[in-house]
Amino acid sequence: MSQATPEPLNIGLFGGGTVGGGVYEICEESNKDFLAGIGADVKISKICVRDTSKARDFSIGAHTTVVSDYKAILEDDSINCVVELMGGVTNAKDVVFEAIKRGKHVVTANKALLAQYLPEIQELLKQHPEVHFAYEAAVCGGIPIINVLQNDFFGDKISKICGIMNGTTNFMLSKMESEGADYDDVLKEAQALGYAEADPTADVEGLDVQAKIALLAKLAFGATVPVDTVPCQGISQLSSADFEFARMMRSTIKLLGTAMLNADGSKLSVFVSPVVVPLTSPIAGARGAGNIVVVNSRNVDTTSYSGPGAGRFPTANSVVSDIVRIARGMATPPFPYDKDWTFETDFTGEFYTRITCKDALGIIKRVGELAEENGVSIHAILQNPIEDRDNVDFVVTTEPCRLSQVESFCSSIAKERWAKNKPLCMSLL
Amino acid sequence: MSQATPEPLNIGLFGGGTVGGGVYEICEESNKDFLAGIGADVKISKICVRDTSKARDFSIGAHTTVVSDYKAILEDDSINCVVELMGGVTNAKDVVFEAIKRGKHVVTANKALLAQYLPEIQELLKQHPEVHFAYEAAVCGGIPIINVLQNDFFGDKISKICGIMNGTTNFMLSKMESEGADYDDVLKEAQALGYAEADPTADVEGLDVQAKIALLAKLAFGATVPVDTVPCQGISQLSSADFEFARMMRSTIKLLGTAMLNADGSKLSVFVSPVVVPLTSPIAGARGAGNIVVVNSRNVDTTSYSGPGAGRFPTANSVVSDIVRIARGMATPPFPYDKDWTFETDFTGEFYTRITCKDALGIIKRVGELAEENGVSIHAILQNPIEDRDNVDFVVTTEPCRLSQVESFCSSIAKERWAKNKPLCMSLL
Ligand SMILES: NC(=O)c1ccc[n+]([C@@H]2O[C@H](COP(=O)([O-])OP(=O)(O)OC[C@H]3O[C@@H](n4cnc5c(N)ncnc54)[C@H](OP(=O)(O)O)[C@@H]3O)[C@@H](O)[C@H]2O)c1
Ligand SMILES: NC(=O)c1ccc[n+]([C@@H]2O[C@H](COP(=O)([O-])OP(=O)(O)OC[C@H]3O[C@@H](n4cnc5c(N)ncnc54)[C@H](OP(=O)(O)O)[C@@H]3O)[C@@H](O)[C@H]2O)c1
Repeated sequence: MSQATPEPLNIGLFGGGTVGGGVYEICEESNKDFLAGIGADVKISKICVRDTSKARDFSIGAHTTVVSDYKAILEDDSINCVVELMGGVTNAKDVVFEAIKRGKHVVTANKALLAQYLPEIQELLKQHPEVHFAYEAAVCGGIPIINVLQNDFFGDKISKICGIMNGTTNFMLSKMESEGADYDDVLKEAQALGYAEADPTADVEGLDVQAKIALLAKLAFGATVPVDTVPCQGISQLSSADFEFARMMRSTIKLLGTAMLNADGSKLSVFVSPVVVPLTSPIAGARGAGNIVVVNSRNVDTTSYSGPGAGRFPTANSVVSDIVRIARGMATPPFPYDKDWTFETDFTGEFYTRITCKDALGIIKRVGELAEENGVSIHAILQNPIEDRDNVDFVVTTEPCRLSQVESFCSSIAKERWAKNKPLCMSLL
Repeated sequence: MSQATPEPLNIGLFGGGTVGGGVYEICEESNKDFLAGIGADVKISKICVRDTSKARDFSIGAHTTVVSDYKAILEDDSINCVVELMGGVTNAKDVVFEAIKRGKHVVTANKALLAQYLPEIQELLKQHPEVHFAYEAAVCGGIPIINVLQNDFFGDKISKICGIMNGTTNFMLSKMESEGADYDDVLKEAQALGYAEADPTADVEGLDVQAKIALLAKLAFGATVPVDTVPCQGISQLSSADFEFARMMRSTIKLLGTAMLNADGSKLSVFVSPVVVPLTSPIAGARGAGNIVVVNSRNVDTTSYSGPGAGRFPTANSVVSDIVRIARGMATPPFPYDKDWTFETDFTGEFYTRITCKDALGIIKRVGELAEENGVSIHAILQNPIEDRDNVDFVVTTEPCRLSQVESFCSSIAKERWAKNKPLCMSLL
């Protein structure tokens, strides 16, 4: 009968920054003895960084050499495991591909690399079945969602996976919810606190989530999602008015990555967008920089997984879990299964549209006509007392319809002379 | 380098009831092809039940024999995996122990058996290192908390694990919260709906949670907890008044299993009790029969895991995950580590005490004196307008103190002539 065979790991670590430093500290300091005690024989013998002379915020043991030449690790036959924590999709790609080709196990936290080169990585791994490949930290840093999707749904059939996968934007949206703040102000605050980068595009336009939901769709549905084709709407158009309307609906607004089957299970929709979430949903409860993933499935119904999505030690912890599983001979196949899917971007749902207009006679009647012309049934109309007749916001929520229908409804509204712009449109959860 | 070696499983299933039927249906019907496709070669060739003539609510394939004689499975050398879903601690014990002795892998959902015979099972497994032993379904049926604790905290140090682990009582407490209902009424409703048994003791007195938190303490801290010694307070003393006071504190009340380290990490406290939980905690968000487990740790800080704690398919799904991991050669050591602990029942916390009295002069002053005499600092006093002078409830919450101090405070109040009974005492989360 099969028993796991432990394999002592001699690690070459690429990256000694936020996450790399945390991994080194855990493996070589805080949990060194514990890991040895549970049979995980793990040693980091080399760290590759850009600048070997830079001071590090963690102390490096005498048995570890700091290098800047990739070959010092890749061509070292005594190193049997590469941990890639540099980031980016160019040098990191070379390192990861070369490591696999040389039969070294790979652990990475690099969602961008994974999302972009998934088919190539899978192909290469097929040619190197002796290589373990693990990436728990790539999605929702501290939440073990990859392990769960790799191991706990074999007997099940997932119908939907969605969640908050970006801490920066969740921090911003939580502020907008709790303080009634406006988008520009919370962005500045997030930048001042170091949550958001000087160029916040990847976060606020949802590109970071795009890569992550593509990966989760691979795990949950076996789908190889061409990342660039995932429809992606960010949060930069949201205003404090949207949070007011959400509150009237006992809801809030979250930026979600979603991958879900259509009603008959034949097509898969993957998208990133702000979503109006009822306050009773566990998703609404994830505040601050917290992340959460919710899985809907035939057997288990709904489970959810929440925790920190980033940060040195939460992320490093996931990397270490991968390392230890490999060292103990308990690694999981990285992608549980593959399946060809037809992707459906024109998914069916209920929608929220915020219409901004100059107050005029007959607007509601005209909105009703345009809805009907586009096959959209109105569920409710929400409006606050009018304060500025030149700038009136009201919200139309729809019965279930296709995204294309509500988008064409919004486009036709944009053409009305009383409309100030194209209405903002979001899904309802 | 080590690769997992799949092992075709010929399964003998003990139990064809709620969970057993679900496991059969998943493995032999709904996901049969999928499992074969991912390399899990799984067949259930025999089912052992009490009464072979009983009609079953799942259809049994021609390749499966229904038996009532344990030996038909245990002495069948072609069967290499026993799945125990009978329940109880007598026959189930014989079956599980005999299966291990014969070198058969064991999957079980039996928390009672595990909690009671943990040391014996560990000892037996040491003598049979070829046997895989898995029990994902034993705690919080549909939530993969066992997998997570076995695999995702190697580099971390858990300081506390707590959660809602009993759906019946959570259903009752959720009703008391949302409808202001009284204990006796919600118990009757839970019984009518089939959530609670005719004899609800195991659920409402917390004994079911006692076994579960003992198991989680094993996984999180390596502790072998003598189950019978785990202090256990149920929910039968709670009244609608407690939920009113909780609401005044922007909180609700949940029955929690808790295992936590003391401040310097030297001692472990394990207990079951109702706890006053702030509405902002994810624990408060677990309503109805839902379960949730929250883990606090050094690296990851807080993660939480929520989902259904029971039911045919959620529970069966966890059993199937265990089976598939064994079949694919990816089973995890069942108990990640062992550690001797000093247990501390007299833990430190903040407490809620509800005092019921006849209205009289000077009560608050006297309560203050008794608190001081017992070394208890009062944090707040809550009282509703008095309606019945013979039956006045008020609540005293404390600053951090030891459990023994607040208990002795309550005992001294009980001796006062105006006290109607010994005050109810709970922790604050
Ligand atoms: N930070 C998080 O919370 C988090 C969460 C989840 C996933 N991740 C992922 O983890 C990875 C690492 O993130 P991080 O936050 O740790 O990044 P970081 O703090 O910027 O550290 C990057 C490290 O890689 C080194 N490096 C970068 N480019 C290199 C190159 N071309 N050659 C050699 N060394 C190079 C840097 O060397 P120098 O120090 O000499 O410049 C630095 O030590 C990324 O893929 C990221 O997406 C991060
Ligand atoms: N139900 C849940 O949601 C849930 C959740 C988590 C864990 N669990 C655990 O899963 C286990 C099974 O629970 P369940 O709800 O499936 O129980 P159940 O519906 O009562 O089914 C028990 C099955 O075992 C058989 N059985 C019982 N005693 C037996 C004996 N002495 N010899 C032979 N067969 C025997 C019964 O046979 P007959 O059908 O012929 O009577 C029946 O098929 C228990 O350990 C329970 O704690 C259950």
